[in-house]
Amino acid sequence: MEQQNDEVNAYIAENHARWMEGLREWLRIPSISADSAYQSDVRASAAWFADACSTLGFPTVEILETPGHPAVFAHWPSEDPNAITVLLYGHHDVQPVVPEGLWTHPPFEPTIVGDVLHGRGAIDDKGQIAFHLLGLAAHLHAEQRQSPAVNLKFLIEGEEEMGSTHLRQLLEEHQEMLSCDVIVVSDTTMFAADTPSVCLSMRGMVAAQVSAFGPKEDLHSGVFGGAVPNPIHGLSRFIDSLHDENGRVAIPGFYDDVVELSDAQRAKTAKLPFKEAEWLRDTAQVGATFGEEGYSTVERIGLRPTAECNGIWGGYTGEGDKTIIPSEAHAKLSFRLVADMSPVKVKELIAAYVKDYVYSGIRFEVSFTSGAFRPCMTPGDHPANRALVQAMESAFGQEILFTYEGGAGPQADLVDVLDAPVIFLGVGLPDDRFHAPNERARVPLLLKGAQATAYLWRGLAENADEIRRAS
Amino acid sequence: MEQQNDEVNAYIAENHARWMEGLREWLRIPSISADSAYQSDVRASAAWFADACSTLGFPTVEILETPGHPAVFAHWPSEDPNAITVLLYGHHDVQPVVPEGLWTHPPFEPTIVGDVLHGRGAIDDKGQIAFHLLGLAAHLHAEQRQSPAVNLKFLIEGEEEMGSTHLRQLLEEHQEMLSCDVIVVSDTTMFAADTPSVCLSMRGMVAAQVSAFGPKEDLHSGVFGGAVPNPIHGLSRFIDSLHDENGRVAIPGFYDDVVELSDAQRAKTAKLPFKEAEWLRDTAQVGATFGEEGYSTVERIGLRPTAECNGIWGGYTGEGDKTIIPSEAHAKLSFRLVADMSPVKVKELIAAYVKDYVYSGIRFEVSFTSGAFRPCMTPGDHPANRALVQAMESAFGQEILFTYEGGAGPQADLVDVLDAPVIFLGVGLPDDRFHAPNERARVPLLLKGAQATAYLWRGLAENADEIRRAS
Repeated sequence: MEQQNDEVNAYIAENHARWMEGLREWLRIPSISADSAYQSDVRASAAWFADACSTLGFPTVEILETPGHPAVFAHWPSEDPNAITVLLYGHHDVQPVVPEGLWTHPPFEPTIVGDVLHGRGAIDDKGQIAFHLLGLAAHLHAEQRQSPAVNLKFLIEGEEEMGSTHLRQLLEEHQEMLSCDVIVVSDTTMFAADTPSVCLSMRGMVAAQVSAFGPKEDLHSGVFGGAVPNPIHGLSRFIDSLHDENGRVAIPGFYDDVVELSDAQRAKTAKLPFKEAEWLRDTAQVGATFGEEGYSTVERIGLRPTAECNGIWGGYTGEGDKTIIPSEAHAKLSFRLVADMSPVKVKELIAAYVKDYVYSGIRFEVSFTSGAFRPCMTPGDHPANRALVQAMESAFGQEILFTYEGGAGPQADLVDVLDAPVIFLGVGLPDDRFHAPNERARVPLLLKGAQATAYLWRGLAENADEIRRAS
Repeated sequence: MEQQNDEVNAYIAENHARWMEGLREWLRIPSISADSAYQSDVRASAAWFADACSTLGFPTVEILETPGHPAVFAHWPSEDPNAITVLLYGHHDVQPVVPEGLWTHPPFEPTIVGDVLHGRGAIDDKGQIAFHLLGLAAHLHAEQRQSPAVNLKFLIEGEEEMGSTHLRQLLEEHQEMLSCDVIVVSDTTMFAADTPSVCLSMRGMVAAQVSAFGPKEDLHSGVFGGAVPNPIHGLSRFIDSLHDENGRVAIPGFYDDVVELSDAQRAKTAKLPFKEAEWLRDTAQVGATFGEEGYSTVERIGLRPTAECNGIWGGYTGEGDKTIIPSEAHAKLSFRLVADMSPVKVKELIAAYVKDYVYSGIRFEVSFTSGAFRPCMTPGDHPANRALVQAMESAFGQEILFTYEGGAGPQADLVDVLDAPVIFLGVGLPDDRFHAPNERARVPLLLKGAQATAYLWRGLAENADEIRRAS
């Protein structure tokens, strides 16, 4: 095993520069799924990845059409008769890049400065999918195999950043083709560069838009001001009402399906060497923490649900002044879910809260603007997670801790439809600026990711029977 | 006098169609002062009005340059040796037209449908300045004069809609040239089409922008959500904090210089045939009133101060979702002032309130974005107001009531620098959509305005001595 690992590492050392050229080519494609202006770019991004899989040797590579953006499916059956099937899930679409003025490197001209790869998609998620290509080549080379140690399936979708609109449909349509024993998701972060970790859970999400309607038309704030309700005031009070004085979400029933943390889990979570002051200063870059009273920052991020306003607009926002009482105001909201919370039920709770919300003369409406994700967890002692931890420990040469991811992903749908446990092999860092301007990836960590995936296919194969029993 | 009035009316009946062509020409010029893209249009608008004054016969017509947009000054001395001097103030700039999609007629293609003139500036303020041109011609014609019965000065500025940035400077620079016994402002509304009225006061204004700053960069709301402060939440709470549970502005000291209404004033104000349900349905077009407890809607609009959010923006507001905790959020605010409130002092109170406002981890900043206006009142029994009421009663053939204008104007600076009382000759209606899409004017009321101004110059001349004593 030592020798095979050395072979893997040698292969990666020799081939990573060429591999990086490919990744940069992929990152140049602005595959922004949420903005319909980039439709053809999302398609070009799928085509790029499909070509890369074919070139690597996948016997089956398919563009999977959806009513929205296409996904890529690739399948390489193992020559080993007892091999289990592993499905890698990720996405090739990226977030919008506004405000573009804040990018120090152009978002779609990937640039390497020192160890850092700059560009939209560098870590979320093209960089983390690309390391599987390098890792798989290393795995085949190191073990002198003609096929992977597991039956390997890739499902790389093109709509994750717009809520995986058609993923569920795709999974159901191709359920047999995508069937597997383990799902590997590579779209997450580690605790820190020097504290590699494995994520045990991801939060779910519900996204909504709330609109407040007042006067039928904008009114002059002199002629009417002080006598009619202002939808911005109404919406502001509504947003403020979403939290109580203890930072808890104030929507009735919101916490009903949140499983309270056990003392054991809280103690284990507290082991993470989380330096709050440093994190505030360097990562969040904000003056104070904020959140639900009685929980640590790590718990608030990974293990507690939230309500957050992601955008707000209404009235006059141009140059100079326009003294109006606007006709309407709008807010984009997102809610993070944990444990047993159901997006369907949370939507009902939000809809009821908006329906019952009273601000005299203001009418509130809510719509749910994108896919919703259920939260999801695979226990740390599951054999697939044990194999993952071993692969990561071999790559990083140190103990791997457990984390809980605050972000949402479509992993719940994967688990649901494919009926397999999900494990998270991710090498992003919390300050890699996922979704923000100046997204970046650390090249050495992408290469560790490639190493870990090369080891992982062997590790999963070695534990095939136990995994079959547990799944 | 009867006969002269008939002559005035006959002249207007004969000449209004031609006059309207001129007004429409003026309205086609998009003189949006707040948007620097329209700089040359504001200048073209000034040139149009200067030409119109020259054509009418004003011996002196000047474009008054400012560091911003130009004003127009015109002067026509009376041949009568005892004549008092009257200065007409108004503005030739207009409000922005966003959102343009809501206009049923293009804002700068003035269109007459029935009795209604549609277009930006139709009532605020080009229409109300233009009727002075028609009225003055009628006055000269009816009385067979070579010059007006009063020394007539026009000061029509180009920066009113951006806060009259340089008006004070202009007034001080040309103080002697602009000196007068009475100021006439034509930029206001009447109570209703069938209840003509004269305004006794206008509210003052202070405009501000408040910004809330949180994380240095936008953060992923999954990776950070629930643990860091969100500037939209902070700004929402700030906006909600501006009013207490009784609808009073909660800024400490805000009401210190508000003179409480006397029972007599409240009784007189209550005489206005204000139909609240109708006003709500047809004018404000909103489902409920809102405001300071213990005051009627008429009082809230004309005689009480306000705090109003005119615009808000922050975070992601584009298509789809972008699940971020934004770095910053902003609000445009305006405050209406009454009685003895001073804009300088109110700015200090607002600045102190923002400075002391606490939302952990969020930094608040305030800036004052445009000129500020002091509130202003000339008593109803002042001889200039008595002459105005008589002119209006002759034009409308019915009793003229008193109102209090909710809007702000630069009349306080005029009063201050020129040391003369201000009277308000306005024929706008509350539902003429000042500052909103689909601004409009009623043509018959503009013509009544022309009649009233023709009678007014004679009326003021007849009361010259009394006005001199009162002023």
